[in-house]
Amino acid sequence: MSNAYPLDPAGLQAYLLEQIGPARSLQLAVEADDPETVVIAAPLEPNRNDKGTAFAGSLLSVAALAGWAVVARWCAAESLEAEVVLRSSSARFLAPARSGFRAVAHRADLSQCENLSRMLARSGRGRVEIPVEVSSDAATVMSFLGVYAVLLQR
Amino acid sequence: MSNAYPLDPAGLQAYLLEQIGPARSLQLAVEADDPETVVIAAPLEPNRNDKGTAFAGSLLSVAALAGWAVVARWCAAESLEAEVVLRSSSARFLAPARSGFRAVAHRADLSQCENLSRMLARSGRGRVEIPVEVSSDAATVMSFLGVYAVLLQR
Repeated sequence: MSNAYPLDPAGLQAYLLEQIGPARSLQLAVEADDPETVVIAAPLEPNRNDKGTAFAGSLLSVAALAGWAVVARWCAAESLEAEVVLRSSSARFLAPARSGFRAVAHRADLSQCENLSRMLARSGRGRVEIPVEVSSDAATVMSFLGVYAVLLQR
Repeated sequence: MSNAYPLDPAGLQAYLLEQIGPARSLQLAVEADDPETVVIAAPLEPNRNDKGTAFAGSLLSVAALAGWAVVARWCAAESLEAEVVLRSSSARFLAPARSGFRAVAHRADLSQCENLSRMLARSGRGRVEIPVEVSSDAATVMSFLGVYAVLLQR
């Protein structure tokens, strides 16, 4: 994704639904997309597992996308034409999600952003860690840490 | 899942498609379900991202399910009525998947199985680590490690 990154919830939602098959089938909905936070939600029904709770893979999917969006958004705001890809992830499942759920990704802290800027200026590539929390019914059901690689396109 | 665990690929596939919404929408297909290995595949098209490769969340989904199936299968073979849930996971993304992909989960090694049996006998609960590899076009695209909790139902 490049400078065309949509900087508002409706624009991001349209992009995800058009470009990413599972965003459609899992019925993801962008609830926030601002400089500090990206929030992506999903209803239980299309994500239900055999226990009647949310499928682990769906929790991982919303988290991976929210983290990706927060990095892609930062690149766009910095006028960087860059590809953002998930390099590694870890997750802890804390409780079952018994209804709809939402992933909240926060922008990396200032020192990480400055470090990423330096890496990109030096070599055209860098990486950044984004923590994401997924909640359901006001409880945290999964904590996720994504390491995203950023590759300048030039 | 309990003793009703289906011990063949067609039975497992029917179970997943009936019980797990994303197994239908991501078009998962069970290719092997034997005492040593569970293999779950998916086509690219319903799992495509904005780069034309497989969405990270879909790679995580097939891996999480294949690992779960290998543990649920072991419980059924041991005549244990148990719930199996993913407790934590970590994954490394090694290359983009440019076509269909498959997750291969191997049964835990003998010492882990013996350890799990002891934990279950003592407290009714235990956990086991299952490594899963996801490949596409004969290359490994993601390596995944799932820690699954096993809870005896009694």
